[in-house]
Amino acid sequence: MAIDLANLFESLPEDISHEIFSELVRGDNIKIERIISHGHSSPASGWYDQTENEWVAVLKGEAKIAFDNGDEVHLTAGCHLTIPAHTKHKVTWTIPDTETIWLAVHYT
Amino acid sequence: MAIDLANLFESLPEDISHEIFSELVRGDNIKIERIISHGHSSPASGWYDQTENEWVAVLKGEAKIAFDNGDEVHLTAGCHLTIPAHTKHKVTWTIPDTETIWLAVHYT
Repeated sequence: MAIDLANLFESLPEDISHEIFSELVRGDNIKIERIISHGHSSPASGWYDQTENEWVAVLKGEAKIAFDNGDEVHLTAGCHLTIPAHTKHKVTWTIPDTETIWLAVHYT
Repeated sequence: MAIDLANLFESLPEDISHEIFSELVRGDNIKIERIISHGHSSPASGWYDQTENEWVAVLKGEAKIAFDNGDEVHLTAGCHLTIPAHTKHKVTWTIPDTETIWLAVHYT
């Protein structure tokens, strides 16, 4: 076995003019990815409407996620939630002063 | 949708005389759990020999994982790795002075 040890808080890209998605694991029914935002939010128009469930955590930074029923949550470091498939949502804000590091697990 | 927002770094148990496993997500092919150790290691005898793949990250604290081929890795906060099914391993050490908070994703 070759042990491939990496760090979620390191290898941050220098260019963060757009969000950076890094795939950590891909299996038959699962994808784990790290996402780095820096003041980004979802496009103003439209919602994420995903065919898979998503468990998402903020590991560093802060963010807000809005849902199409009007709810909005403010996530600080450590906050996590599950977004069931086809639950329309969008990221309305991430803290502008530092990176926000997300961990997302997509599963069927 | 009822939004169930929790925090990985909060709701730490007062009694950490043994490791604490908290299931965060259970799906058909996936389980996500938080594990809190405090100076614990695996039992001296035997290895974990799991039927599922495991992606594991240390979010806080430090730990060492040994493999039956003799390799050992030292994980600090943010370190993550994938342990394929039936890769025998054990936790040989976690830092004694503070909690080690793990995130584990088991998947087929």
